[in-house]
Amino acid sequence: MNFGMVARVIGNLLLLEAAILVLPLSISVYYQEREVILGFLLAMGIMGLLGLFLSNVKRESPRLKVREAVLIVTLGWTLTSFFAALPFFFSGSIPSLVDAFFEAVSGLTTTGSTIINDIESLPRGTVFWRSLTHWLGGMGILVMTLAILPTLGTGGLQIFKVESPGPSPDKFTPRVVATTKILYTIYLCLTLVQVLLVRLAGLSLFDSLLWAFGTVSTGGLSIYNDSLVRFSSNQFLIYATAVGMILSGVNFSLFYDLGKGRFKQVVQNPELRLYLAILFISTIFVALNLHGTIYGSLGEAIRQAFFQVSSIMTTTGYSTADFDLWPTFSKGVLFLLMFVGGSAGSTSGGIKVIRFLVAGKVIKREFSRLLHPQAASPITINGKMISPEVVQGVASFYLLYLMTFILGALVISFENLDLMSAMSAVAASLGNTGPGFGAVGPMQTYAAFSPWGKIVLSLLMLLGRLELFALLLLFTPNYWRE
Amino acid sequence: MNFGMVARVIGNLLLLEAAILVLPLSISVYYQEREVILGFLLAMGIMGLLGLFLSNVKRESPRLKVREAVLIVTLGWTLTSFFAALPFFFSGSIPSLVDAFFEAVSGLTTTGSTIINDIESLPRGTVFWRSLTHWLGGMGILVMTLAILPTLGTGGLQIFKVESPGPSPDKFTPRVVATTKILYTIYLCLTLVQVLLVRLAGLSLFDSLLWAFGTVSTGGLSIYNDSLVRFSSNQFLIYATAVGMILSGVNFSLFYDLGKGRFKQVVQNPELRLYLAILFISTIFVALNLHGTIYGSLGEAIRQAFFQVSSIMTTTGYSTADFDLWPTFSKGVLFLLMFVGGSAGSTSGGIKVIRFLVAGKVIKREFSRLLHPQAASPITINGKMISPEVVQGVASFYLLYLMTFILGALVISFENLDLMSAMSAVAASLGNTGPGFGAVGPMQTYAAFSPWGKIVLSLLMLLGRLELFALLLLFTPNYWRE
Repeated sequence: MNFGMVARVIGNLLLLEAAILVLPLSISVYYQEREVILGFLLAMGIMGLLGLFLSNVKRESPRLKVREAVLIVTLGWTLTSFFAALPFFFSGSIPSLVDAFFEAVSGLTTTGSTIINDIESLPRGTVFWRSLTHWLGGMGILVMTLAILPTLGTGGLQIFKVESPGPSPDKFTPRVVATTKILYTIYLCLTLVQVLLVRLAGLSLFDSLLWAFGTVSTGGLSIYNDSLVRFSSNQFLIYATAVGMILSGVNFSLFYDLGKGRFKQVVQNPELRLYLAILFISTIFVALNLHGTIYGSLGEAIRQAFFQVSSIMTTTGYSTADFDLWPTFSKGVLFLLMFVGGSAGSTSGGIKVIRFLVAGKVIKREFSRLLHPQAASPITINGKMISPEVVQGVASFYLLYLMTFILGALVISFENLDLMSAMSAVAASLGNTGPGFGAVGPMQTYAAFSPWGKIVLSLLMLLGRLELFALLLLFTPNYWRE
Repeated sequence: MNFGMVARVIGNLLLLEAAILVLPLSISVYYQEREVILGFLLAMGIMGLLGLFLSNVKRESPRLKVREAVLIVTLGWTLTSFFAALPFFFSGSIPSLVDAFFEAVSGLTTTGSTIINDIESLPRGTVFWRSLTHWLGGMGILVMTLAILPTLGTGGLQIFKVESPGPSPDKFTPRVVATTKILYTIYLCLTLVQVLLVRLAGLSLFDSLLWAFGTVSTGGLSIYNDSLVRFSSNQFLIYATAVGMILSGVNFSLFYDLGKGRFKQVVQNPELRLYLAILFISTIFVALNLHGTIYGSLGEAIRQAFFQVSSIMTTTGYSTADFDLWPTFSKGVLFLLMFVGGSAGSTSGGIKVIRFLVAGKVIKREFSRLLHPQAASPITINGKMISPEVVQGVASFYLLYLMTFILGALVISFENLDLMSAMSAVAASLGNTGPGFGAVGPMQTYAAFSPWGKIVLSLLMLLGRLELFALLLLFTPNYWRE
């Protein structure tokens, strides 16, 4: 294990994080929030010193292998979350360190769960940092899934290669830096358009920026106590945000294709088609279910259904209504979408649409195998054969996701909740969605959980974000054997 | 397609069913239940005539291929269920035909759900037939999974071959008739021992017989309105029944091994070990959770936990307490066990322990593949390699089971239920368990469902019993293409 290289990367990450804190710090300086300024400076000092120390550790070689990459990704996400919690804690905005950690993990994993009951009374600097974390988390996800992991290209992580049909090197410039630049340009463009649209709808620049952070990162941390319910009658705002979330749940390599004029390739992309089909069909069904039961007007039923389906499927978690009060069928669809998630190679969470595409083909093949046991039929997506290893990786991912969900729900069931609340809290954490049902419904927070419960949920958010294997691999004996 | 042969087998099944109806008929004659006698005779007449007609259809050849076997199994289960419903309907015991069909499917699939709110007021002949159906269903399952399917040995059904480790022909006499005889001897012995034990505990012979039918078939249709709650303080009865259920959830080929003196093979059987381990661990956890929250005495907590865990995991569904009132963790464990189910090659339902064994090994292999992408590592159970086809069959089964569960829950969510009740109703039907939580809790019945809801749940019971693929295969276009 090349620990030196791991330490240097983590050190650089912390230095970067400290540097970025200048942004919320300036907000606090502008609003003259004394306590927050001091807290932020203290956090930046600690991060800076530790970062400097780690980034100067002696390395054996500059090369990274799977082992190191897995450790960097896991440690990186956990440690940056821990240090992102310090500004909340030192500024006194979140008095409990566990709560601050929960909020930071929720941000950086773009989950969007919160333990803050009254967000509107918090200092502006804190609110800015809280929203910035999920925007940064979104950047981290894109680089991890589309720039770093494909270059490693091994084992179960191969699923990420499936995302971009066609030979990989043609798609993105092979060098990680170049890929990252392209990704960030797309991400920034999406953010700017969203800021502009929200600003046009009449919100302040500050609010528009933070609103856009939540949309584009599919994080969904709201800066209002009622999520977005107070804006639910603003049709322009609701549709603009819904479309923003949907775009952010698309594989980012498709935007690159679009930029290169490869329209046909984008339109024919099977994951995109399935993603939009699920969104469309779910919206129709939920709207029909809501019309007549909750909303008298069909227009409002469609708007509410479209927004909520988009929000949950892209694992954003914004809400324009208390969907916990919706009829059972609609709640069932939303619960299901927490597991589905958006496209691979986007900032969204969940199991991801591409895996459902593979699952559908696996089941279809099984039926034909029952009738023709001798016929060998490989699984293809977009005309390309998917190797048996990738198929098995997908199957393992499903099994592991379910096992994690089940174990998580059993542990969380000790939190004095009903089974549905416990299950949805775990599904919403593991899928990086945010709100669930019942005690963790869209108008509730996670404040009432015990410290242990909050730590378990934080772990589940990290597990979901790192697609399980990366984090769990560290707990296998083989990993540490040279 | 050899339709002639299919018709003949179905015809013989119906003749057999009509003949078996003599048993409940004689009970009704003994108790002088006039209406029931007439109803039963009418049903027997219809079955007999149709059976005679079908069993004389001209066949092309006596050979059966996968295609025909699948059709026979599916049609066989559906039609015998439909005709098993006629005695309930014609006798006036169950005035609605849909209700009668639900009750018959619930019996023959050994699910044990009921739509009868006051079973104690029903005529004895009807009660006897109702309990007899799940005992007969258990016989059908054993023949299907251990005698017929292994001789076909193709595609996803290969999982049944995994059940009996060691070369198949050594295990059971290859001929289906001989295998069936052995299976029925074991099944009969288990039933007799259970009757004897319940009789010893002080119940009437009639009640003991019907009690044993429910235990050994893992059906769990009770002849009392409160399931078995009134006997919950009778330690001997409770432990005897729990052990009876556990034995009935074991792969029946292991009893054969035991009879042949192959103790080592039985003790080392990995599915048996995992099955007992899950039972044991779940009991401990639930007992600890119940002790102090529901039951003051640790002894009673253990007894209740042991009974309920055994009942749900073997998918029997008997209950000695209203477990819907238990704490969330205990309910979570029971909900989970509805999916797990018992061993393959037993009368129990659910996903089956052997598939969890395979899933565990698949996940383990995935972790090692992440570190060593080049290493080829086949999956072995009990020292025998499991072919990739079987592994993929298992993975497909999980995915299909989940998809069916999800679609079922969404459809049932229109029944004016909360999400947890809807989900548990579907899990309990698909897993052939019986009771669920909330509106379908152990002290409730399925009477309040709409006719459509009852038909969907009946279909789910059949799907679960036929392990999905057999039934769903009929709906693929390829199946009907020659």
